[in-house]
Amino acid sequence: MTEKNMTMLCDFYELTMANGYFKNGFYKRITYFDVFYRSVPDNGGFAIVAGLEQVIDYIKNLHFSSEDIDYLRSKNIFDEEFLDYLKDFHFTGDIYAIPEGTPVFPNEPILTVKAPAIEAQLIETFVLLSINHQSLIATKANRIVRASQGRTVLEFGSRRAQGADGAILGARAAYIGGCAGTACTITDELYGVPAGGTMAHSWIQMFDTEYDAFKTYCETYPENVTLLVDTYNTLKSGVPNAIKVFKEILLPKGITNFAIRLDSGDISYLSKKARKMLDDAGLQCCKIVASNALDEYLIRDLMMQDAKVDTFGVGERLITSKSTPVFGGVYKLVAVEDNEGNIIPKIKVSENTAKITNPHFKKVYRYYDKESGKALADELCIYDEVVNDKEPRIIFDQQATWKTKELTNFTVRELQVPIFKDGKCVYDMPTLEEIKDYCAKEIDLLWDEVKRFENPHKYYVDLSEKLWNTKKDLLSRFKNFI
Amino acid sequence: MTEKNMTMLCDFYELTMANGYFKNGFYKRITYFDVFYRSVPDNGGFAIVAGLEQVIDYIKNLHFSSEDIDYLRSKNIFDEEFLDYLKDFHFTGDIYAIPEGTPVFPNEPILTVKAPAIEAQLIETFVLLSINHQSLIATKANRIVRASQGRTVLEFGSRRAQGADGAILGARAAYIGGCAGTACTITDELYGVPAGGTMAHSWIQMFDTEYDAFKTYCETYPENVTLLVDTYNTLKSGVPNAIKVFKEILLPKGITNFAIRLDSGDISYLSKKARKMLDDAGLQCCKIVASNALDEYLIRDLMMQDAKVDTFGVGERLITSKSTPVFGGVYKLVAVEDNEGNIIPKIKVSENTAKITNPHFKKVYRYYDKESGKALADELCIYDEVVNDKEPRIIFDQQATWKTKELTNFTVRELQVPIFKDGKCVYDMPTLEEIKDYCAKEIDLLWDEVKRFENPHKYYVDLSEKLWNTKKDLLSRFKNFI
Repeated sequence: MTEKNMTMLCDFYELTMANGYFKNGFYKRITYFDVFYRSVPDNGGFAIVAGLEQVIDYIKNLHFSSEDIDYLRSKNIFDEEFLDYLKDFHFTGDIYAIPEGTPVFPNEPILTVKAPAIEAQLIETFVLLSINHQSLIATKANRIVRASQGRTVLEFGSRRAQGADGAILGARAAYIGGCAGTACTITDELYGVPAGGTMAHSWIQMFDTEYDAFKTYCETYPENVTLLVDTYNTLKSGVPNAIKVFKEILLPKGITNFAIRLDSGDISYLSKKARKMLDDAGLQCCKIVASNALDEYLIRDLMMQDAKVDTFGVGERLITSKSTPVFGGVYKLVAVEDNEGNIIPKIKVSENTAKITNPHFKKVYRYYDKESGKALADELCIYDEVVNDKEPRIIFDQQATWKTKELTNFTVRELQVPIFKDGKCVYDMPTLEEIKDYCAKEIDLLWDEVKRFENPHKYYVDLSEKLWNTKKDLLSRFKNFI
Repeated sequence: MTEKNMTMLCDFYELTMANGYFKNGFYKRITYFDVFYRSVPDNGGFAIVAGLEQVIDYIKNLHFSSEDIDYLRSKNIFDEEFLDYLKDFHFTGDIYAIPEGTPVFPNEPILTVKAPAIEAQLIETFVLLSINHQSLIATKANRIVRASQGRTVLEFGSRRAQGADGAILGARAAYIGGCAGTACTITDELYGVPAGGTMAHSWIQMFDTEYDAFKTYCETYPENVTLLVDTYNTLKSGVPNAIKVFKEILLPKGITNFAIRLDSGDISYLSKKARKMLDDAGLQCCKIVASNALDEYLIRDLMMQDAKVDTFGVGERLITSKSTPVFGGVYKLVAVEDNEGNIIPKIKVSENTAKITNPHFKKVYRYYDKESGKALADELCIYDEVVNDKEPRIIFDQQATWKTKELTNFTVRELQVPIFKDGKCVYDMPTLEEIKDYCAKEIDLLWDEVKRFENPHKYYVDLSEKLWNTKKDLLSRFKNFI
């Protein structure tokens, strides 16, 4: 990792368009872009948004160095006036976003940018990259944590991550999603995600015998013992040696906080056998950690089979979200301002109905049932609409407009909060612990039906009547095309 | 991205083991570790190794800052003597590696580390992360390039990458694997991978009409035109407007080097229709670029259906290797030196036969047929074996030892080359262009049968008799366990 700032991490077309806007007088034109996603990874019921902190850092540091400008000049397609303009380039717009750790649903604006065209366009790639990556991993981590039903889940995947940021920020996102810690040391140092670890197989191989390796480890770290028991043979060698060493070294010191780790073979079978051997030896206190090819599906099955696992260490299938390794967030123009400052809604039509965008500068409201506290529905409104929680509210499905639902006895909150105002960060960034706690609480407010792994209930994300009419109106102008 | 060096990007257990080796006198013990992988992504016939340049940078910069040491001290498990030792920590060992761009096969050492135990252990996570990530993407890119049968393939995936390095170094790896360029600007600036791009849908939406948007673009960049034709309706609006603008603006200037891009809908159908419309308008010179959910499988089918595509822009399915997003490289202890400097081979046994490691400090030879030039087989030998290419050589399958093959009339080369010697980099790093060219040439030397997507021929990776005997001997010591 070098000192390079990330301003140049943009698709080249952002720059050709920027130069084009500059030359053609659009560059001061105020534009509105929404970040949203269309389908939930792993066919789940919701995603967890993450990656905002890195967007904020990026926006704050947005600038072109003289090397960047020299590089651009060497491409021989940019105007000198434009390159000159880039020397003082910085972000002057507004950003609104749904806070990290919030459950979010398809088609709602996770983040909205209001800025002059060049600025809003240029940040597209990095904003998407950051939100897509961390939302993907936070969402996956939460699935794995939910499958584990209260057992501890640790993130172990650095070596299989897609690059250094994949490991470092992946571990951050996994923590937001509910993991209790990580093996990735630098994520602890930089972000305070608790890192831990004890030994690899090589530790055991370094000694003449497994017993010597275990004994030396327990003498070195009596307070931090998890013995890896599968180097030679889990039940014939690893567990018996571990029991011997626990009794010889740790129990006499009064230490009862230790564990074994299973890293191969059938976790269900081995954990039950190992549990019995440990219990028979009077080591009920010894915890069992399992790792190796785990994800929410295998953990769910292991739990059903009553596997005796206290902690799951999850590697490649979490850090890459292996079963769905892409979070498809997109960045779409939703409005522009005319010369008088009127906001003109824009729509992107498509022959594929699901790809037609929701136009306009919008708000997202979430309705909660006053009695249960549970989230009932989200509603997208036009920016100047205000929801009155004193009166019943009728919402309706935009795919099936005859399906309406009357909400009564609800509380409501606006999900997006201001992050940047006129280029200044106005957001009081919560700590990572706060984000993690908030995430857990917000997920508690979702009905179990939305949290099911298979065929979850589809949470309502509806449009206000005013927004729906705007959309219909815009669509009617393109009716020859779709 | 900050100035932070990557030394702390390690699994925490590397540090607990390191401190343990330090305290227990093992830290000067010379150890040998191999990086290898067990199965080819997407059930392919081979992988392409990449990521070595970043390993070299990492090793050169390996050090602990005083902040790193303070952080470690705060964990209250490391000895002061060890923390003190870390102040001057740097790499003093040897590294051998197969050069980037080489086709590699399961179970052969891609990279071998010979170093004191602490050093060799500590670098495990980053070495694996770098090799795993870039080999994954180079391998995937090459599959996509092969499916495209000579059409140009461009990498377009930054926004869906798993973190900034996923985008930046993913684009580097894709270039090694055969992509002609990228949309990722910073990868061009940092690594010289040609970046390009023209417009997104938002450019078109910014104008009152698609025609105005196209016209303005062609006037701004007459030499760099690819018009995105699917914003409203590809065949009813986009292609007709593009044709009009090409004729009005570009042809009169004598420019014939331009293109349209299809980004939605059925690429096969639309490309044929668009090709006909362009040809009927006398624009045979106009190229067609296709993007949207492409990978080697869809491209193969499009080619079979004679889709009229000249350039494929490939996004998320390349930059995350979506169908197989993990390259499972591992790092295993294969030998240690005793106090007299004798190399003692080590093996990692497993109840799963495929997971038993190949012990010892090794060499990898690749045999080429003298007549065709094609690669015949690889052979793993013990470090001090020398293959004589004057005599026939009998190699045999380690899974089926009765299957032997006599090689005659061959040339042979050792695949690993020295990278670090006594902590100093001794490798003359090739340029990225050289790596890319070398990769293409080496892949030409593989038989087509190995390059098939479905059920490819399994290339021979055999053990020398001496190595096989060593392995058998070590295994016999564990026969009670496996």
